[in-house]
Amino acid sequence: MDTIQYTLPQDRIPRAWYNILADLPRPMAPVLHPGTMKPIGPDDLAPLFPMSLILQEVSTERDIEIPGEVRQVYAQWRPSPLFRARRLEKALDTPAHMYYKYEGVGPAGSHKSNTAVPQAFYNKQEGTKRLTTETGAGQWGSALAMASAFFGLECKVYMVRVSYDQKPYRRALMEAFGASITASPSRETETGRAILAEHPHSNGSLGIAISEAVEMAAKDPHTKYALGSVLNHVLLHQTVIGLEAMEQMAMAGDEPDVVLGCTGGGSNFAGLAMPYVGRKIKGQCHARVVAVEPAACPSLTKGRFTYDFGDTGHLTPLVKMHTLGSTFVPPGIHAGGLRYHGMAPLVSHVMDLGLMEAITVHQLDAFAAGIQFARSEGIIPAPEANHAVAGAVREALRAKEEGKPRTILFSLSGHGHFDMQSYIDYQAGKLENYEYPAEEIAMALAGLPTVS
Amino acid sequence: MDTIQYTLPQDRIPRAWYNILADLPRPMAPVLHPGTMKPIGPDDLAPLFPMSLILQEVSTERDIEIPGEVRQVYAQWRPSPLFRARRLEKALDTPAHMYYKYEGVGPAGSHKSNTAVPQAFYNKQEGTKRLTTETGAGQWGSALAMASAFFGLECKVYMVRVSYDQKPYRRALMEAFGASITASPSRETETGRAILAEHPHSNGSLGIAISEAVEMAAKDPHTKYALGSVLNHVLLHQTVIGLEAMEQMAMAGDEPDVVLGCTGGGSNFAGLAMPYVGRKIKGQCHARVVAVEPAACPSLTKGRFTYDFGDTGHLTPLVKMHTLGSTFVPPGIHAGGLRYHGMAPLVSHVMDLGLMEAITVHQLDAFAAGIQFARSEGIIPAPEANHAVAGAVREALRAKEEGKPRTILFSLSGHGHFDMQSYIDYQAGKLENYEYPAEEIAMALAGLPTVS
Repeated sequence: MDTIQYTLPQDRIPRAWYNILADLPRPMAPVLHPGTMKPIGPDDLAPLFPMSLILQEVSTERDIEIPGEVRQVYAQWRPSPLFRARRLEKALDTPAHMYYKYEGVGPAGSHKSNTAVPQAFYNKQEGTKRLTTETGAGQWGSALAMASAFFGLECKVYMVRVSYDQKPYRRALMEAFGASITASPSRETETGRAILAEHPHSNGSLGIAISEAVEMAAKDPHTKYALGSVLNHVLLHQTVIGLEAMEQMAMAGDEPDVVLGCTGGGSNFAGLAMPYVGRKIKGQCHARVVAVEPAACPSLTKGRFTYDFGDTGHLTPLVKMHTLGSTFVPPGIHAGGLRYHGMAPLVSHVMDLGLMEAITVHQLDAFAAGIQFARSEGIIPAPEANHAVAGAVREALRAKEEGKPRTILFSLSGHGHFDMQSYIDYQAGKLENYEYPAEEIAMALAGLPTVS
Repeated sequence: MDTIQYTLPQDRIPRAWYNILADLPRPMAPVLHPGTMKPIGPDDLAPLFPMSLILQEVSTERDIEIPGEVRQVYAQWRPSPLFRARRLEKALDTPAHMYYKYEGVGPAGSHKSNTAVPQAFYNKQEGTKRLTTETGAGQWGSALAMASAFFGLECKVYMVRVSYDQKPYRRALMEAFGASITASPSRETETGRAILAEHPHSNGSLGIAISEAVEMAAKDPHTKYALGSVLNHVLLHQTVIGLEAMEQMAMAGDEPDVVLGCTGGGSNFAGLAMPYVGRKIKGQCHARVVAVEPAACPSLTKGRFTYDFGDTGHLTPLVKMHTLGSTFVPPGIHAGGLRYHGMAPLVSHVMDLGLMEAITVHQLDAFAAGIQFARSEGIIPAPEANHAVAGAVREALRAKEEGKPRTILFSLSGHGHFDMQSYIDYQAGKLENYEYPAEEIAMALAGLPTVS
């Protein structure tokens, strides 16, 4: 029997997250205060985050211990399985070995629980009563709702309007976990009211929902804010993916030539990739590391690496990142989790260092790859994850053309069980490709703040 | 760190299914031909099933080898995890140890793939081109659609009308796997047309959908029929659940005092329970074995143990089972997979032998247990599985009342990701309890065929 699943027992859950900041050849640009435009200190972030997370955000310690309470919750689905996609290899008739690290086994269905759980844990430990957050596709909101239930926190989720309307089942899942869900933009916040005054039928965006969640958290000392991607500590928590994958690839006796993940904010990609990038820096790994982004929201390939706000309401600090402009509301593509104007500063920095590359995939190609994957591997991927599948299939077909073996490792960040409407639309021929027009990028970028 | 997940590596997938027919103290009653009322032989079933499955149906061999090709596909999700529900135990403040064997990790989301895969495999091996089947909640249809995709078979699913309308995402999943889905009753079959003539707005039932699928298969030599529950060979394939659970309970150093599963047709229950019942027969196990059925469709607790048809159109052979009457169309409760008028003959026989017991759970209690489970364990169960959870919670609370430890093992047969409408309805207070009225049972039973 061919091995297709590489499982590790519960006691092999990593004991520490891997912090690539310890190994970067050049440090990241500082985060700037939106008022003073000077680098911020930990205290500036204290109204929003518990101190443990703020310290993780700036830490340069290489191994950051995972608290026992967090590993205990991780044990519900970690170590997550690494699969060899043998049926897909056969269907593609490729000499490539294709491996995927599957994060959809977690109860909330995606990699997001990897950071939701420690965020809820540290907040609980520091006396927080209530968390606010945003969610686009719903993966992050589901994960935080679940983690909040586990640690006895209230959870308030601003859900991007278009998802709120399209995904009642996502909402129902979060509500089953006990969370309270509001469509964003809402009338509950100043940001929301301002946007609705101008665009009464706004579809919302992650940038807007972030503003609303941040505003609510800033108002109340017992309420903190939790972000599902972009920040260093979030990407840090996701490194369990790559750390486990390395051990599982060793079990398989294989070493990746290319490592891929889809990128919206960058967290699942970074989770798999950063441990490999760390090895690249040390000359211990020669894999190409590839971010796969949607052609409709191409921050890494078409954005500018510069300072910008993390949100549309300009309440957050300024970070240096690949951005399409924080005022831009991306088109309503189905991979809602990838509709973010910026890219994690850490991923942007690693890109700028030349340690990784990025490619784009069109929506229709992503769904075609997802359907082929489902028929071969049984798992119906989230629309976001379809981008990673499409990138991996492209590599596998190139290996076939060249008649060369190649070992491909990709992140399958979540399942599509709550995204079936997008498959219905795809199968009915209702989806279109959309390329973000260069002139719109230029316009949004022209409005960026100038940082000397 | 407390162990909460007991994992087994891929090479510990069972090599043989366990056939309890080898160990029964009294053989099962024969299956009767609907025309002659005489026991049927293998040839009578040949138009519907491949010979390998027919032989499994009547085999009294104890260990039936699982083909390598089937184990290879099983390796995608088997061995499935056994979890200790420590957070639920804590929430219930019970001295009981609660374990659940989780079948929702399979790509199609339930235990049904355990039999869909071998059924597709044997059919492919014997030259079948196309499979027809029925689906209620959609779990079985999804599993067979996936297995058909893996083995290159066409798959045609008659989906009970009420599910077809309520669960577009289930349909989309099956279609993503390449299956063709028709609402039942349909105009494609004589049975469907006859029912629609009388009840143009019929909600359908499993019994009707079975008739349609059987009728289509009987017409074409290249088409066979696949059933997702009830029959011996289906229950046989599910025994991987119990066989693995025994090994995992040994890892946990615990032995169940009570084993529970929800019952509709009986397959997930039998899959977990029959290996334990086999040990009970040999005096090696003293666990109580408990079927949990919905109060709205209580075949084991309120039905009669007698000969009846498996379908509403009376096309199938007659089997001796606990039945509420094959002409009865059960109420539209949300646990669609439990809406079947009969019980697997094997489960009925084991019940008749006094080797197990049965209890009923009301719909609202089942959902309340499901929500509590989700908030403690993160997994949102299928409405069917909620019945097992409710049964397990009842046992745990009894242990608390009595102040005695108790080890509870139950089958969590699938997740509820495609059943969120039922949670929406539950949370909105739209669901009601429904008890099958005694006089309706009596009426349906009065119409049963007389078998001397």
